[in-house]
Amino acid sequence: MKTNAIFYHAGCPVCIAAEQTIANALDPMKYDVEIVHLGNDKARLQAAESAGVKSVPALVMDGAAFHINFGASIEALK
Amino acid sequence: MKTNAIFYHAGCPVCIAAEQTIANALDPMKYDVEIVHLGNDKARLQAAESAGVKSVPALVMDGAAFHINFGASIEALK
Repeated sequence: MKTNAIFYHAGCPVCIAAEQTIANALDPMKYDVEIVHLGNDKARLQAAESAGVKSVPALVMDGAAFHINFGASIEALK
Repeated sequence: MKTNAIFYHAGCPVCIAAEQTIANALDPMKYDVEIVHLGNDKARLQAAESAGVKSVPALVMDGAAFHINFGASIEALK
């Protein structure tokens, strides 16, 4: 059975492409991936908090919140 | 073409099952997932550092290191 995976972010300009790597890497046979921009879509904040999201970017799946920190490459900051 | 995704950890007893959720969630059509315990397999430390790993758990894929912090649930700590 497919379950939902929700990728929460807030528009970090350096990291967003890399972070979506993770969302795109999930098995499409297992997960429907939804991308939520919490900065724009504040109505979703409560659900994110309830799922255990303490910071963004975060991925919620299988009932657990994973907080992902991508170390921006020097190249990306130039 | 399949590429490698490497999940580095150091045996955190609370988090390991949840962290492997991510490794198991990756699309098997896109990624061969390898799990490396850096505490036991110190010969792999240099490659991990070269890939940009600053802390564990981390997932290296598509040339980027993603540092994953799973907030352990209160239940898991009881």
